[in-house]
Amino acid sequence: MKYYMPVTVFDEPDCVRAHAKELARLGNKALIVTGKHSADACGAFADTAAALDSQNIPYCRYSGIEENPSVETVVKAAEYGRSEQADFVIGIGGGSPMDAAKAIAFLMKQETISAAPLYDASLPAEALPVAAVPTTCGTGSEVTGVSVLTVHEKKTKQSIPHRIFPVLALIDGKYLCSASHAMIVSTSVDALAHMVESRLHAKANDYSIAAVNAGLSLWKNIRPVLSGEAEPTDSDRTLLMRSAAFGGIAIAQTGTSIPHALSYILTYDDGIAHGKACGYFLPAFLKEAPAELQKEILDLTGFNGIEEFSAFMHSLYPDLSPAKETLDRAYTTLSANAARLASACFPVDPEMLHRIVYGTEKEG
Amino acid sequence: MKYYMPVTVFDEPDCVRAHAKELARLGNKALIVTGKHSADACGAFADTAAALDSQNIPYCRYSGIEENPSVETVVKAAEYGRSEQADFVIGIGGGSPMDAAKAIAFLMKQETISAAPLYDASLPAEALPVAAVPTTCGTGSEVTGVSVLTVHEKKTKQSIPHRIFPVLALIDGKYLCSASHAMIVSTSVDALAHMVESRLHAKANDYSIAAVNAGLSLWKNIRPVLSGEAEPTDSDRTLLMRSAAFGGIAIAQTGTSIPHALSYILTYDDGIAHGKACGYFLPAFLKEAPAELQKEILDLTGFNGIEEFSAFMHSLYPDLSPAKETLDRAYTTLSANAARLASACFPVDPEMLHRIVYGTEKEG
Repeated sequence: MKYYMPVTVFDEPDCVRAHAKELARLGNKALIVTGKHSADACGAFADTAAALDSQNIPYCRYSGIEENPSVETVVKAAEYGRSEQADFVIGIGGGSPMDAAKAIAFLMKQETISAAPLYDASLPAEALPVAAVPTTCGTGSEVTGVSVLTVHEKKTKQSIPHRIFPVLALIDGKYLCSASHAMIVSTSVDALAHMVESRLHAKANDYSIAAVNAGLSLWKNIRPVLSGEAEPTDSDRTLLMRSAAFGGIAIAQTGTSIPHALSYILTYDDGIAHGKACGYFLPAFLKEAPAELQKEILDLTGFNGIEEFSAFMHSLYPDLSPAKETLDRAYTTLSANAARLASACFPVDPEMLHRIVYGTEKEG
Repeated sequence: MKYYMPVTVFDEPDCVRAHAKELARLGNKALIVTGKHSADACGAFADTAAALDSQNIPYCRYSGIEENPSVETVVKAAEYGRSEQADFVIGIGGGSPMDAAKAIAFLMKQETISAAPLYDASLPAEALPVAAVPTTCGTGSEVTGVSVLTVHEKKTKQSIPHRIFPVLALIDGKYLCSASHAMIVSTSVDALAHMVESRLHAKANDYSIAAVNAGLSLWKNIRPVLSGEAEPTDSDRTLLMRSAAFGGIAIAQTGTSIPHALSYILTYDDGIAHGKACGYFLPAFLKEAPAELQKEILDLTGFNGIEEFSAFMHSLYPDLSPAKETLDRAYTTLSANAARLASACFPVDPEMLHRIVYGTEKEG
């Protein structure tokens, strides 16, 4: 079994400004990669700019990363970064800008920038240094080597084969202050999916399980925020971000499993937010797990049985109802993907997969 | 709070030979650093040599690392490595050869090799790549940046200020097969001390605690081996090594605390084995911890109260009785070390320190 998680993590209030020196050490000019709005709304961009200014490190910004960023976007951003002679990349935002930052840092290390190297597994995974500043609480991208891009050719999302870990992750719960309730719910369900899928992964080991146990124990405490019973406090925001980081540490070891693989189709075809799409399949997936593991996960998250878990998850997105043909495509796609099916630590036959995709609760 | 543990860990049977390529990637010629016997007796040296041979990587060997290696030894080994033009270092053994390997790799990166840079905190912590192959189950050195050397000038052991993490840790429980029961007891008590001291450390955080919880849960299962009720199985040896690794991951975040600081004097003055020396102070230290934390630690290790814990620890080394003047020097030295006293998460006043050093059970 293997354990590897080389990121230097600072997880504390105001860590971006406090660790300006660590940021500055990454290079001479930063390419800051963001989406259109959230990095500004939550203050993370301003903090990062101030940190770089304090160390006299110039930067340029590419703010055109869309949700579920495409190969085309990443190529465009890398070309921009090269034209600006940036030598390190800072991704600020949710999974989209952070995943994009890794792919961009990889492309900027290639001799010529084009889409081809992204999915060429024969190339070494060398990249410019990356720093990651999360502003959502799901992806865990700040502590993984994973970069998932939208591949329009294949009508889905797909990880690039190269593992590009950030050098530095700067995690500050306050960047959730401007996030909507829906965003917090969707991303923290993504974090939960990471932990559950990692725990039930064929590659789960004592190291990945240590991260899952820690993350689920934190996640348990933010359930009232997700259900809308409580307004999030600063401490809740810290827990939300930190449980997502533990989810990231876990999947950095094991990878994700069936709910994630299914979710990509829902997101591509129906535009359903990533976390929500994962959460849609999570109860039925957990229901199929060996009883002992299921209980372990439910105990850690404070649920009295799978029914309570399912009810809680459905209450978070009561109107979610993917199109029949989307579910059909998800089912057919997964059926043909033996490697993904084998990612679960229990055997998944066609009938079980059918229950996970079309699960009786959802039909009822 | 910070989390950083950049080592690539392979923790599985026969991992040294299986990961020959990862070893070979570290350089063109290896300096293998060992003690006199144990790396040979347990087969770890033969495995490492075979792994390097399989990749056509030449190596030289320095087998003169004594227990609690001195500054002088480390300088000598670095001079030898340079004369052999080695460009990476493999430490095989317990904490002594692995800690020495880090200091040697640091010295070999300096322009001239001498003792001076070792404790010069102003120098950058740059070093040749290090791989670590543990053959005992205590130090956790394979996953920490810590290198503790004996400083005869100061009549104690002391960490060098530079944090030199191995690039690669190859952890295989089978290397415990030739270890004596006394060695297994002493080193696994060291691992326990790492976890308890990290959990009770002022710098403990959710990341270090995750490692402690995982490690203590494993450690619990090897108590019958330590008490001599059971002969160790292969699975026990894996647990012994792995709990030590989790202890290492924990102290890589927090550092150790008062029992370790006290132990150095016992080892220097009375030649008491390191783990045993730490274990001598552990029950009294844990007894002073806040009730909730004490209970958490006892629950994880499966003890019904501090008395049972103390009795178990004393049963492991019934004849251990440090000289009064040694304890006096330990007490006096720690009393004067405000930073070490502040490393505990609870206030330690002179009276409490007195109880930890001379604890009533020991006097009785």
